[in-house]
Amino acid sequence: MENKKENFSEWYNEIVEIAGLSDKRYPIKGMNVWLPYGLKAMQNIDRIIRQNVDPLDFQEVSFPVLITRDQLSVEFEHVKGFENEVYWVTRGGMEPLEVEMALRPTSEAAMYGMFSLWVRSHADLPLKIYQIVNVYRYETKHTRTFIRIREIHFFEAHTAHDSYEDAERQMAEYRTIWDRISSELCLPFLIDQRPDWDKFPGAKYTLAFDTVLPGGRSLQIGTIHQYGTNFSRNYDIKYLKDDGTHEYASQTTFGLSERLLAAVIAIHGDDQGLIFPPDVAPVQVVVVPIPSKRADVASYSDSIASLLRNAGIRVALDSRENYTPGFKYNEWEMKGVPLRIEIGDREAESRKITAVKRTSRKKYQLLEGELASSIKALLEEIKVEISKRADEHFSRLHRHYSSLEEMKGAEGLVLAGWCGSRECSDTIERTLEFGTLGFNRNQDSREKCVVCGREGSLGVFSRSY
Amino acid sequence: MENKKENFSEWYNEIVEIAGLSDKRYPIKGMNVWLPYGLKAMQNIDRIIRQNVDPLDFQEVSFPVLITRDQLSVEFEHVKGFENEVYWVTRGGMEPLEVEMALRPTSEAAMYGMFSLWVRSHADLPLKIYQIVNVYRYETKHTRTFIRIREIHFFEAHTAHDSYEDAERQMAEYRTIWDRISSELCLPFLIDQRPDWDKFPGAKYTLAFDTVLPGGRSLQIGTIHQYGTNFSRNYDIKYLKDDGTHEYASQTTFGLSERLLAAVIAIHGDDQGLIFPPDVAPVQVVVVPIPSKRADVASYSDSIASLLRNAGIRVALDSRENYTPGFKYNEWEMKGVPLRIEIGDREAESRKITAVKRTSRKKYQLLEGELASSIKALLEEIKVEISKRADEHFSRLHRHYSSLEEMKGAEGLVLAGWCGSRECSDTIERTLEFGTLGFNRNQDSREKCVVCGREGSLGVFSRSY
Repeated sequence: MENKKENFSEWYNEIVEIAGLSDKRYPIKGMNVWLPYGLKAMQNIDRIIRQNVDPLDFQEVSFPVLITRDQLSVEFEHVKGFENEVYWVTRGGMEPLEVEMALRPTSEAAMYGMFSLWVRSHADLPLKIYQIVNVYRYETKHTRTFIRIREIHFFEAHTAHDSYEDAERQMAEYRTIWDRISSELCLPFLIDQRPDWDKFPGAKYTLAFDTVLPGGRSLQIGTIHQYGTNFSRNYDIKYLKDDGTHEYASQTTFGLSERLLAAVIAIHGDDQGLIFPPDVAPVQVVVVPIPSKRADVASYSDSIASLLRNAGIRVALDSRENYTPGFKYNEWEMKGVPLRIEIGDREAESRKITAVKRTSRKKYQLLEGELASSIKALLEEIKVEISKRADEHFSRLHRHYSSLEEMKGAEGLVLAGWCGSRECSDTIERTLEFGTLGFNRNQDSREKCVVCGREGSLGVFSRSY
Repeated sequence: MENKKENFSEWYNEIVEIAGLSDKRYPIKGMNVWLPYGLKAMQNIDRIIRQNVDPLDFQEVSFPVLITRDQLSVEFEHVKGFENEVYWVTRGGMEPLEVEMALRPTSEAAMYGMFSLWVRSHADLPLKIYQIVNVYRYETKHTRTFIRIREIHFFEAHTAHDSYEDAERQMAEYRTIWDRISSELCLPFLIDQRPDWDKFPGAKYTLAFDTVLPGGRSLQIGTIHQYGTNFSRNYDIKYLKDDGTHEYASQTTFGLSERLLAAVIAIHGDDQGLIFPPDVAPVQVVVVPIPSKRADVASYSDSIASLLRNAGIRVALDSRENYTPGFKYNEWEMKGVPLRIEIGDREAESRKITAVKRTSRKKYQLLEGELASSIKALLEEIKVEISKRADEHFSRLHRHYSSLEEMKGAEGLVLAGWCGSRECSDTIERTLEFGTLGFNRNQDSREKCVVCGREGSLGVFSRSY
């Protein structure tokens, strides 16, 4: 396998292929086939998302994929040039359609006409919905699996509120939800407020969750947007107040995508292959029987696998013939299974199980009587180990600088004082060939701009995907 | 609410709307918004499907929605006129695409080029995959929610085998899977082999699962297809045999859609609204507290709801103020919740819980100590009751006739001897204004044709959706 540190990009492409996550030989560029193992990982991420939004009264819905030109053109007032990024359906059968329709690039235009029907009074607010669907971008840049593609697996939450203050509370709730999701995925990140010239068109402001991949380039893995009344005025989403007047709703959105899977692959993996956090792993524990003359190794392996399955653990039993245990160990390590159980003569006889961690490769002897709880405890430990390694990786790849000179040749996420002006941002971008991610919002800090020396705050700069 | 028996069609449209299943005010005809309650019911049906195919080694995948004209034109040899039923994407941004692409109407053309890469040797067979995605038809007929629409929620399984015999075993396995799924949905059906002129284009033969809705029209709610080597020859799906020669794989497919939800709504509901089988119900038990001066009714209701949730039951606690218990009872009956729990002074004091079945409206007093198991037993009873009612409905709406004369004015599924010829089928269709569903395959029976008197088998005829 490719060396991850030296050739990250090749390593990434290789592991996506050999681990059976995605097949990019589909004849449309940037549209790939989700293979079973990759799809299961993504569905686990979707489950984690649902588990974190459902208890907070978000309701799941599903809107049509097609959006008429009329629906979209309401949004075009905000979204200049958006038209260049969408796929257009122009024919039904052999006839040209009366109204051309776009494959949704995101669902504001699809949803907000319906919002205007659903929202009538205070009693309808807050309205909190989400959907998990595919969205489409006619992407002309170089594509890369799970990172830059044309058919994107997308989570989008949309809300409407009776006041800007309540919408701001929603923005805070998103940050709490994101803390929980990123913690289950063991992903470190910065929260950055995008510069006005790079926020979502139509948003009052955009906060992005930025992480950094081993090659040193940053990856935006989530965004939350405060719309205020920018969309509700255009789509006529308003409610009747107690005094008989109408007021426009304030709105927010929260978007996540399969880039979460990309980050999990890229940040946690090593030269032996993938390392899945236990919550994401399609297989959490693999049981490998070691061939033996004793008849009961196979049946004992079987019973151990069942025991763990009944405890709610995702288990694979690899009883393939014609493969050595060593071959199987390598294969399941490559596939990132957090924990391996080996069952041979000794284990079948002593009823003590050998377990090996994917992270540290440490071996453990576990008593059969407490197996399920021991395995769960080891999975918890693995999660902590993965987070710790990811944090170390992150700390190596983000650094605070105090002068432009010092920043030359920097890698990863570069933090430095910035006044917020386009001019100084341009200077930094030219000097470093970096882009501007915006102001860091993990904390509020006052800093002097490294370009002009004026008062400012902490800016974040990087090469990005 | 509309009277279901007298105005089935109006009843159906009304319940879909007031129960909050789907909103058809979306500005594209035949493309509706899945509302939270309807989506949950459909997701439960999807879960039932997955639970029945996953243990049989089907692997879930997800293919792109777009299919190039080149991919599709391989299939066009089979699918004449198909081109008239699909949506075409012809522009990316402002530029015309070099290759026009269709929104998938079904996924043979998307999948089978990849199958030809995946299948190399015996070891790759059988290949058994499925996906749950939306498919698209440029439908020109009258649309109806969940029954005839342009964006269809679709389950499609596709397999490849080393012999026709193995593909035939797969067809038998599909029937077993379908028996289990239909039993959880409490849906009665006939298995009919479609006439050659009405089978899926490219199939050697098609078996359909036909049910009948209260209005007397039949609804196809599932199909399985034997393709033999018809597709593998065109898409070059072949494997290396032991003797060094190559052989084309034999293939089958199995398709299900949101028509399953339509059938559940239409067959089980009554004049009070929906009746969901427990496995499909978004809410299986609703807990309604009856307002009281005792402080503990609210908290007791809360604890009962938690107790049931922890037992894996889907529970809603309706503690809305400003609504009477009677109003709530009606609303949850309309929404088809199988079981209602009422908690007032008496219950809080005696710790005996009152439960009421949606089906029979019978009341039960349940001991708190055995509540979860009692509730599960009642849900099982309800499932049996729903199946029994559905079977009675079905027996009223399908009948065996022995002459053309007798068949005049018949309703529902009409069974009668048929020789299999197009000519006699045309005569029956003209006489009754019925369509021909094909030969019944629930059993093998010899019958004389009611038109020409020749030897034949049992034909099935109906008006259909």
